[in-house]
Amino acid sequence: MNTFGNIFRLTTFGESHGEAIGGVVDGMPAGIDVDVKFIQEELNRRRPGQSKITTSRQEPDQVELLSGVFEGKSTGCPIGFIVRNTNQHSQDYENMRCLFRPSHADYTYYNKYGVRDHRGGGRSSARITISRCVGGALAKMVLREYGISIQAYTSQVGDIALDRDYHRYDLSQTENNAVRCPDPEKAAEMEALIAKIKAEGDTIGGIITCVIKGCPAGLGEPEFGKLHAALGSAMLSINAVKGFEYGEGFDCVTTRGSEQNDVFVPSTDQTVTTRTNHSGGIQGGISNGQDIYFRVAFKPVATILKEQETVDLEGNPTLFTARGRHDPCVLPRAVPVVEAMAAMTIADFYLLGKAGKR
Amino acid sequence: MNTFGNIFRLTTFGESHGEAIGGVVDGMPAGIDVDVKFIQEELNRRRPGQSKITTSRQEPDQVELLSGVFEGKSTGCPIGFIVRNTNQHSQDYENMRCLFRPSHADYTYYNKYGVRDHRGGGRSSARITISRCVGGALAKMVLREYGISIQAYTSQVGDIALDRDYHRYDLSQTENNAVRCPDPEKAAEMEALIAKIKAEGDTIGGIITCVIKGCPAGLGEPEFGKLHAALGSAMLSINAVKGFEYGEGFDCVTTRGSEQNDVFVPSTDQTVTTRTNHSGGIQGGISNGQDIYFRVAFKPVATILKEQETVDLEGNPTLFTARGRHDPCVLPRAVPVVEAMAAMTIADFYLLGKAGKR
Amino acid sequence: MNTFGNIFRLTTFGESHGEAIGGVVDGMPAGIDVDVKFIQEELNRRRPGQSKITTSRQEPDQVELLSGVFEGKSTGCPIGFIVRNTNQHSQDYENMRCLFRPSHADYTYYNKYGVRDHRGGGRSSARITISRCVGGALAKMVLREYGISIQAYTSQVGDIALDRDYHRYDLSQTENNAVRCPDPEKAAEMEALIAKIKAEGDTIGGIITCVIKGCPAGLGEPEFGKLHAALGSAMLSINAVKGFEYGEGFDCVTTRGSEQNDVFVPSTDQTVTTRTNHSGGIQGGISNGQDIYFRVAFKPVATILKEQETVDLEGNPTLFTARGRHDPCVLPRAVPVVEAMAAMTIADFYLLGKAGKR
Amino acid sequence: MNTFGNIFRLTTFGESHGEAIGGVVDGMPAGIDVDVKFIQEELNRRRPGQSKITTSRQEPDQVELLSGVFEGKSTGCPIGFIVRNTNQHSQDYENMRCLFRPSHADYTYYNKYGVRDHRGGGRSSARITISRCVGGALAKMVLREYGISIQAYTSQVGDIALDRDYHRYDLSQTENNAVRCPDPEKAAEMEALIAKIKAEGDTIGGIITCVIKGCPAGLGEPEFGKLHAALGSAMLSINAVKGFEYGEGFDCVTTRGSEQNDVFVPSTDQTVTTRTNHSGGIQGGISNGQDIYFRVAFKPVATILKEQETVDLEGNPTLFTARGRHDPCVLPRAVPVVEAMAAMTIADFYLLGKAGKR
Repeated sequence: MNTFGNIFRLTTFGESHGEAIGGVVDGMPAGIDVDVKFIQEELNRRRPGQSKITTSRQEPDQVELLSGVFEGKSTGCPIGFIVRNTNQHSQDYENMRCLFRPSHADYTYYNKYGVRDHRGGGRSSARITISRCVGGALAKMVLREYGISIQAYTSQVGDIALDRDYHRYDLSQTENNAVRCPDPEKAAEMEALIAKIKAEGDTIGGIITCVIKGCPAGLGEPEFGKLHAALGSAMLSINAVKGFEYGEGFDCVTTRGSEQNDVFVPSTDQTVTTRTNHSGGIQGGISNGQDIYFRVAFKPVATILKEQETVDLEGNPTLFTARGRHDPCVLPRAVPVVEAMAAMTIADFYLLGKAGKR
Repeated sequence: MNTFGNIFRLTTFGESHGEAIGGVVDGMPAGIDVDVKFIQEELNRRRPGQSKITTSRQEPDQVELLSGVFEGKSTGCPIGFIVRNTNQHSQDYENMRCLFRPSHADYTYYNKYGVRDHRGGGRSSARITISRCVGGALAKMVLREYGISIQAYTSQVGDIALDRDYHRYDLSQTENNAVRCPDPEKAAEMEALIAKIKAEGDTIGGIITCVIKGCPAGLGEPEFGKLHAALGSAMLSINAVKGFEYGEGFDCVTTRGSEQNDVFVPSTDQTVTTRTNHSGGIQGGISNGQDIYFRVAFKPVATILKEQETVDLEGNPTLFTARGRHDPCVLPRAVPVVEAMAAMTIADFYLLGKAGKR
Repeated sequence: MNTFGNIFRLTTFGESHGEAIGGVVDGMPAGIDVDVKFIQEELNRRRPGQSKITTSRQEPDQVELLSGVFEGKSTGCPIGFIVRNTNQHSQDYENMRCLFRPSHADYTYYNKYGVRDHRGGGRSSARITISRCVGGALAKMVLREYGISIQAYTSQVGDIALDRDYHRYDLSQTENNAVRCPDPEKAAEMEALIAKIKAEGDTIGGIITCVIKGCPAGLGEPEFGKLHAALGSAMLSINAVKGFEYGEGFDCVTTRGSEQNDVFVPSTDQTVTTRTNHSGGIQGGISNGQDIYFRVAFKPVATILKEQETVDLEGNPTLFTARGRHDPCVLPRAVPVVEAMAAMTIADFYLLGKAGKR
Repeated sequence: MNTFGNIFRLTTFGESHGEAIGGVVDGMPAGIDVDVKFIQEELNRRRPGQSKITTSRQEPDQVELLSGVFEGKSTGCPIGFIVRNTNQHSQDYENMRCLFRPSHADYTYYNKYGVRDHRGGGRSSARITISRCVGGALAKMVLREYGISIQAYTSQVGDIALDRDYHRYDLSQTENNAVRCPDPEKAAEMEALIAKIKAEGDTIGGIITCVIKGCPAGLGEPEFGKLHAALGSAMLSINAVKGFEYGEGFDCVTTRGSEQNDVFVPSTDQTVTTRTNHSGGIQGGISNGQDIYFRVAFKPVATILKEQETVDLEGNPTLFTARGRHDPCVLPRAVPVVEAMAAMTIADFYLLGKAGKR
């Protein structure tokens, strides 16, 4: 189950401390200009060591495309790619070999497979989101052709939260600070909080909001292919995600239908629009042409630099203190991953939507 | 995209006012006693007209199994089933033919397909969850063999909310009241609120909590087959769902890693357990043997009995007032649907898990 | 694995002596006129008892569509359908309960599932091809819109064989005789042979040829979605099929490249054509716009009316003589099944092909 | 559609003259010793330049595993791999840029995608079967654990054919000659024929037979997952394959049921066996425990060194003579590819079969 999507499909491989992270994008439409520089920039947004509030692991994360592109254009054939792992401190993880780190996937992987690459979390490391960013960058190139854009941003870190209404912010400011928050003041507060948490050897969670603009009406499939279910599944597949809501989400449970309904009104450009957008751009699982927006909850990273109780492979109690280089808060680096997953989901449904037509 | 699951698969068909609702369960293991009476009881839990706070549409929703069972046992062959629609007031919907009801799927279906069965929402009606309840009942028969049980309950209606900690309630009380809430006092409050909302011709949302007990460690697949992502996708595919969270969900974003981590401790029964269960029984997308629990947010139903603005098929403004029989709050009848989707998801991953083993 | 196809998908259920045979077609494009009479006619072509060289089991095989069609047009929603079993002589099969019929699926099903509906072969009966004919009829309605037509015919029964070159026959004559052979003289010989075999209580095999006309260039997917591989898989899924070849098939192994190659030549209608069509209309797994043709080998039916040795459920030797009503040669009734599988395959790839396009 | 399999899945990428050929094997069970040397040996069996009857293109085809293996054992995580292309004479193909080679996929790819990597056939080159051999080698390691072995061999080249009965040959002799034929005398004749054809600048087809031993009863799924249909689809996905038959295949069409049926007889080892094996080890799509055997027809390679007519991209007639290094007969190098596809198919169904069990 290392494949994502139906028509635009990403298959991934790689572990934190293996030879390489990589994957295959199958279903890239032919004839699209493939901008390798843009792919690298997207990778750089999730790269470790990019600021003082991220892990100090330094890796260039240089992507190499191996197929599917000819004279700068996609050929419709699968695009294989790899990113070599270069800065591995595998010895940092030697003390993890025989125990299960709390709230990591060590125990569940060991239980499921009987063997485990303990170095840096192996397959369960967030490092494997590299492949998603490559797939997402390719998907964005597809979406660009259709005028669809995706912007995610950090909307909450710990208790420091933006207003839920994304219209109140200039999202183009998102990349201007290390936390990727479009409100400069809140960004500064978030950064200070993360620095403080880091100094304590602890970690903190938060929320990423994502807005998709320009998505035409009609994307999504009834029943088990609902667009928001696919987006939810995509987001929940990202490391450390604990919740997903779209439109007004959990907040709408206290409202009444008469407040929540989005009334249709005529639009000057010949199409129908809605007066409000509580629905988050999706009705009955299918896009209605309005902005799609959703929120994703991230837990605080499980790796803390404090001593914790745990058990070893034989089930005996022991103590454990993490070494290595870790993020005190994943959100800044998770923003491009959220975008990547959203981009692949929308590209997939866009291409899938064509299939159902006469 | 009317098929759910990988190994235990449900394919559904049917519209609110068509001939029948039905489906096919493919992947039911052979040799399981198929209890048709139990399937019917599960259907009765979602049946309209079961209490005064649900729609007054009266339908027996009698299920007929057409294949896959021989002398009372599953044969491993697909189980086809139908439930005839009998109490249709299609004329109630004649005024919907030429307009788009606000926050319903009318517009998006019309936009996607160009044609639309406007009667009662057609394919987008919650009536089609009948098929899910049949699939879920069969899945529960599978899970029973493995000692896995699933219990959902209404934990919030409007502002009336239970405590998040499900251990504080006796979940066996859930079916004792019309709202399916295990706290009798809160249940009475919820019922009164729904009655009031109904009298106003309005609707109200809420939250359903679901607890899965007895799930062994090791279910779930890395990367894009994470167990919670599958559960999330399953829940988000249910009509009116706007959000999903598992474990501490959105609440965990304000906590620190040192608070959130679930420390492993030795267990008397030779396996490892955790001291707390903030994780919600899943780590790295794979079950760890603890209870799995999650929450699902439902919006207020879009059908209200108040006049609303909208546009017609030509995009001209018009007014619309719903007729017909509708639920003021979907939660009581959605509880068995949540269980059904959870049951099918867990059964699917249980069977899938076997496939990966040597 | 009771689902066929990617975009145009058929899921089937039913056993020979269960309540009903049926299925779900998911992915039917919206807005197509659904001609129920035509579906019934296709079923009548495979109906038992249609001539004196088929089984004398008499069943009306009346199809009922349950969803997905509104006011005569497809809605894009899944089309559920059933055909009730009515003329069951289950007692004819009582002697099969405790033994394995030679070259039937009795032993393999029993070995796989541990339980078995022994009546008439259960799920392995050719009666379940009813669902395929319904799916095929719907697919033909889709293909008609694109000008694609499919014609299969019996090209060999035992030693009586037509010439391989289908251009030598008037395929519109196919339905004029009971064996569905476009050559009236050969048809008469085949009919006589089948009658003779039947009188002996024996069975005979043969070959069905199928020709697809009007298929545009560009259908099919590289690597594992080659059009001919999908056609081959579809044909090999039909009961009693032992071989598949397309274009010149097995005969081409003795030829040289210089003989076998199809030279491209300019075409008056602005597209490219080939001077010969040894390739069978497919190159590199993708259609080239020429006729697609292939041949399917059917073994003699395993049910013979002669005493045979076998073993019982405990592995003890025993003797067995079939009762019941059986076909001495499946080919006449298999012709519409071959067409149905071809139609669904082509419709699926046609719709899938759209998905890959910008 | 560059992914093969359900549980044991291979996703491939790469073109003849791109950076690398590679892929991802997802679903490899955990804890299996991964023998990289064996993978390389399998690749060497299909390597160009291995004998004087194959293409003179010299490539080491060195495989590099990038993930999914830890301390010599599979971890259950996806195994990414690449084989760099090193000996490319891309200029040999410059004359192909603007025309369509007869009976190659040039025209169909161009028609489908609008762009085309013309160098060496790009994605449609047989060079991409490298990925299949890697996947097949891993599948063989899985099958070895279950005592299942697979042996393919060249059984016909042009008119020089072995007897159909594989029992007459010592299959362990297969690798002793350049054509991979277990009969030394026939092998010498085949080799001489291929040398003669090569000297003429022409090509020749043939048949590969494959025998699977040790496959337990019960593999395969009813209806659309029949084991022989999966094998057929796998074989038909190999470049240049035109036909597939299993058991007696096309020959059985002239026989009678009383001759063709395989009578069950008691077996000394407590299981049931059959007196004959006309069925080819599969009944009703499910293995019966006997040897599985099938035959695959290969056309003569389309690349000949003779001048041929064709058209250019604008549809104008032109002449074309291939340059470059090519195989006069693909069969010797296709033997390991047939085995690889068979191995992946059987491994996939073996693992899938577990999923259906209680």
